[in-house]
Amino acid sequence: MRLADLETPRLVLDAGRMDANVARLKARLARLGVRLRPHVKTCKSIEAARGLLESRAGPITVSTLKEAEQFFAHGVTDIFYAVGIAPGKLDHVIALRNRGCDLKVVVDSVEGARAVASRGAGIPTLIEIDCDGHRAGVKPGAPVLVDIARELSLGAVPLGVMTHAGDSYGCRSTQAIAQMAEQERRAVVDSAAVLREAGFEAPVVSVGSTPTATFAENLSGVTEVRAGVFVFMDLVMAGLGVCAVDDIAVSVLATVIGHQHDKGWIITDGGWMAMSRDRGTSKQPVDQGYGLVCDEDCRPIEDLIVADANQEHGIVARRGGGPLDAARFPVGTRFRILPNHACATGAQHDAYQVVRGSTDIIATWPRFGGW
Amino acid sequence: MRLADLETPRLVLDAGRMDANVARLKARLARLGVRLRPHVKTCKSIEAARGLLESRAGPITVSTLKEAEQFFAHGVTDIFYAVGIAPGKLDHVIALRNRGCDLKVVVDSVEGARAVASRGAGIPTLIEIDCDGHRAGVKPGAPVLVDIARELSLGAVPLGVMTHAGDSYGCRSTQAIAQMAEQERRAVVDSAAVLREAGFEAPVVSVGSTPTATFAENLSGVTEVRAGVFVFMDLVMAGLGVCAVDDIAVSVLATVIGHQHDKGWIITDGGWMAMSRDRGTSKQPVDQGYGLVCDEDCRPIEDLIVADANQEHGIVARRGGGPLDAARFPVGTRFRILPNHACATGAQHDAYQVVRGSTDIIATWPRFGGW
Repeated sequence: MRLADLETPRLVLDAGRMDANVARLKARLARLGVRLRPHVKTCKSIEAARGLLESRAGPITVSTLKEAEQFFAHGVTDIFYAVGIAPGKLDHVIALRNRGCDLKVVVDSVEGARAVASRGAGIPTLIEIDCDGHRAGVKPGAPVLVDIARELSLGAVPLGVMTHAGDSYGCRSTQAIAQMAEQERRAVVDSAAVLREAGFEAPVVSVGSTPTATFAENLSGVTEVRAGVFVFMDLVMAGLGVCAVDDIAVSVLATVIGHQHDKGWIITDGGWMAMSRDRGTSKQPVDQGYGLVCDEDCRPIEDLIVADANQEHGIVARRGGGPLDAARFPVGTRFRILPNHACATGAQHDAYQVVRGSTDIIATWPRFGGW
Repeated sequence: MRLADLETPRLVLDAGRMDANVARLKARLARLGVRLRPHVKTCKSIEAARGLLESRAGPITVSTLKEAEQFFAHGVTDIFYAVGIAPGKLDHVIALRNRGCDLKVVVDSVEGARAVASRGAGIPTLIEIDCDGHRAGVKPGAPVLVDIARELSLGAVPLGVMTHAGDSYGCRSTQAIAQMAEQERRAVVDSAAVLREAGFEAPVVSVGSTPTATFAENLSGVTEVRAGVFVFMDLVMAGLGVCAVDDIAVSVLATVIGHQHDKGWIITDGGWMAMSRDRGTSKQPVDQGYGLVCDEDCRPIEDLIVADANQEHGIVARRGGGPLDAARFPVGTRFRILPNHACATGAQHDAYQVVRGSTDIIATWPRFGGW
């Protein structure tokens, strides 16, 4: 089978690009002396994750208990569920742990800690730190950290601290990302120090985002890095300078189904259902619309982007508009479209069509969704 | 089982609201004397579609061949695939037809018509008309219509014309939508007249969008209306005046997992993976963020919206910001969040948890995705 034999749209994964992305971050973190706990929320596929794992047992990070279940069913036991635990999920967490899964959770309040500790199940639990005002977490080094750890110790196991520098996605230079990485590091290192002064060990000091993992210059005091999107990379990462466009390992195969010649439009069957509604490059210096259009060998075609999208229609045009020689792209032409955000685009598909630098399909890897 | 027993996030469907939405549009189209060919791209579920269908055989509209396959496997035979046909899908179309599925396709160019006709399989084929400059299609009444029909008649069956008034989503008053409905109607009626003058029967004259179907005053000359989102409705439709907020039949059940008290934020486990990245209300007078927050009985809570979203985190805040009494919404509180766009939010889930005006779950209906 070749890409030309597939009905479209389909999600294509270039395993060669993926392997290079993984090797690059692994080498970097090895130099910095920190362990990688890859986030499988991006790939959601056992097969795609194989090259990511340090060993069969993990470690991994997950964003849903579905991911924990799927990876545990395939032998991964060292799992951190990195979204603040909802009390209604604790039965499920305890059931997984009772089956032999070393599942860890996270809280960011005394209230949340009480819910976990009240189960008396000894669940290892991290405390989330808000390093950049982005989302959840307590302020770095805040006294409440000790209150949360004390509450946890009544029936759970306070394991340390974690943070995620989500605001690194908004940085405008690689220097700014490096500064954000240091801010992220200090947030958890300072917080761990507060816990240790109060008598808690805090063996885990966890940071993670693909941009900060790529540009951190010093990770001393950090015990692990969580990152997810680095495995595939995407246009948002390219816009940040985290990767080159040619590093992006996932693309959506789509077919030309028509034109609006007077508007310079090519219509394809790659709409937002195939690309996702993610417009992550809309605030970057180069807006890639719903995706950057490449030929079947994944080479960008000048400045063609998916300028707009309906559910199953993509409208391809020059970035900024302008005439197009539609005769070059007759009905039936196939594009590979690089996505803004690999996590979002991946989630629209149930499998990867795997290639390795050519258009021959060497495997089909299922991926899962849901919770 | 009740909603309170579910792990979150989950997609909830109120069958009572759905039935009322369906009955309302069916009654309206019956008064206008036009047949409904519901678009199942919104529900993507056999069970959810049962109340939509005129008979076991259909008719229905689909946006993917996967939808055609799924509904054909359950006895639906009268199916129109309303996305311009890619030549690479014709083998699949012919295989479905050979198995007894009365599948119809659409083209909008001589080039596209040639691809279909060249198969010599007598595939019934509509010609797409561009009634509003929105997407695909030939100009209403354009002479090329006859060229396309002639090309089709060489090996396919020219069946008539279809259009979709996608720009009705951008209207700012119900009067404007009614005018758009008339523009949509004239586009296909005039185009059918051109075909008939040239000797083609054009038995099918098809229009469709939920807004225009809701406000059309006259559909004479139209033989069928395709509409999809009316079955569930959503915040975009409410913003257009097509429905009330209380008509919206789908919601995402999510749980409070934390707060940022100083910011007036409530953090939930309903992120963009559960809501989709669709921001369809962002250009409407009332921006609903990633969704409008309701209590477990689906009553809106003042002006709480999902102001921002990460993959598995939703940030709930007052529309426009402002302080919030977080003690009213402790960790573990459950919300039902109304979506911007039912098609996009539905696609993030693999099942509906079905209720009927209460929080008791009366059924779980699977839904499918993919192509």
